[in-house]
Amino acid sequence: MNFGILVFDGVEELDFVGPWEMLTMWRKVGAGPEPCLIVGESGAPVTCAKGLSINPHVSFADCPALDCLLVPGGQGTRREVNNPVLVEFVAGQARNCSAVLSVCTGAFVLHAAGLLSGKAATTHWASLDRLRALGDVQVREQRFVRDGDIWTSAGVSAGIDLTLGFIASVAGAETSGEVQLQAEYYPATSRYGGPEIHARAPAYLERQ
Amino acid sequence: MNFGILVFDGVEELDFVGPWEMLTMWRKVGAGPEPCLIVGESGAPVTCAKGLSINPHVSFADCPALDCLLVPGGQGTRREVNNPVLVEFVAGQARNCSAVLSVCTGAFVLHAAGLLSGKAATTHWASLDRLRALGDVQVREQRFVRDGDIWTSAGVSAGIDLTLGFIASVAGAETSGEVQLQAEYYPATSRYGGPEIHARAPAYLERQ
Repeated sequence: MNFGILVFDGVEELDFVGPWEMLTMWRKVGAGPEPCLIVGESGAPVTCAKGLSINPHVSFADCPALDCLLVPGGQGTRREVNNPVLVEFVAGQARNCSAVLSVCTGAFVLHAAGLLSGKAATTHWASLDRLRALGDVQVREQRFVRDGDIWTSAGVSAGIDLTLGFIASVAGAETSGEVQLQAEYYPATSRYGGPEIHARAPAYLERQ
Repeated sequence: MNFGILVFDGVEELDFVGPWEMLTMWRKVGAGPEPCLIVGESGAPVTCAKGLSINPHVSFADCPALDCLLVPGGQGTRREVNNPVLVEFVAGQARNCSAVLSVCTGAFVLHAAGLLSGKAATTHWASLDRLRALGDVQVREQRFVRDGDIWTSAGVSAGIDLTLGFIASVAGAETSGEVQLQAEYYPATSRYGGPEIHARAPAYLERQ
């Protein structure tokens, strides 16, 4: 199984590095995806949303048929949903993928590629209304959502939880647990500041 | 205030991108560090531990005097603790820093630079015994540890918690809460697989 992670100018850093870390740690503890590829349209360096510069492994032209594809979010998605080359790349790869995943506002790229219509999905809390306004998505306020072969997560850091859930579904909970241990993903439960800050968070927060 | 994040071949991806995301989100919600710089010895592209390729913003030679410095971990630290150029860079910058932070096995780089002797500190759970064996560090099994101006965290993902704690100490809990909200850092509490996996985790897990 190979795995591609799409990047573009303005991709949010943690949106893709969180899943990248979990997927590549899966390779370390078991039969994780090989290769894991960072895929950019031209293959040229990409400047992320907060200014980190990265070098894709392959361009669209050089990218093999992918078994799984993850689309991160970030401000750049507002431009890329109108980029027919990128949207067609996602739609074309998805036809052969056993799973397509998005993090944060990457959900809007999946929608532009025709992958979210009629599906249950989620996105960053500040974009939930925008996802509802598309009209054909069953929006869920969950940390991550699986609807068949389409997996979507809440914002930024939620891609880590999404990926651990995905690994558990593919390789079993024990493997996901080994990844969790190696990445020492036992996050603190602190909530900083007053409750008025976190009142803007989605409904899943109340259920935690 | 400016902030430098050290990178080197074999740096673990999430170790530095987790803090990077929180620090740069702090810039978005308030008076976060400006600039935030990814600093590499030569300035040439760096291949991270799991194969992500990144481009530092500055070389050691071009790096300004830093107010704060974060040293991530990863397999590359085993080589870099014996690299006098890198160790002297950390030691030299630290003299002027108001805070020096490490994630995961970045703690061993701080130690090589003379910054951990007599200090309370932590590291990745699998390297705690190696930290104890240094003989002059008060090892704590905590998610992160502050001892004066030295902050250290547990493994890989723990750099996120470290950075939110650091932001709260510098800018207040409300600012850290805004960063947490924007990054939607409300992680799931799932533990995948059986308890025998997580029995290898450090003591703080039992207190969560």
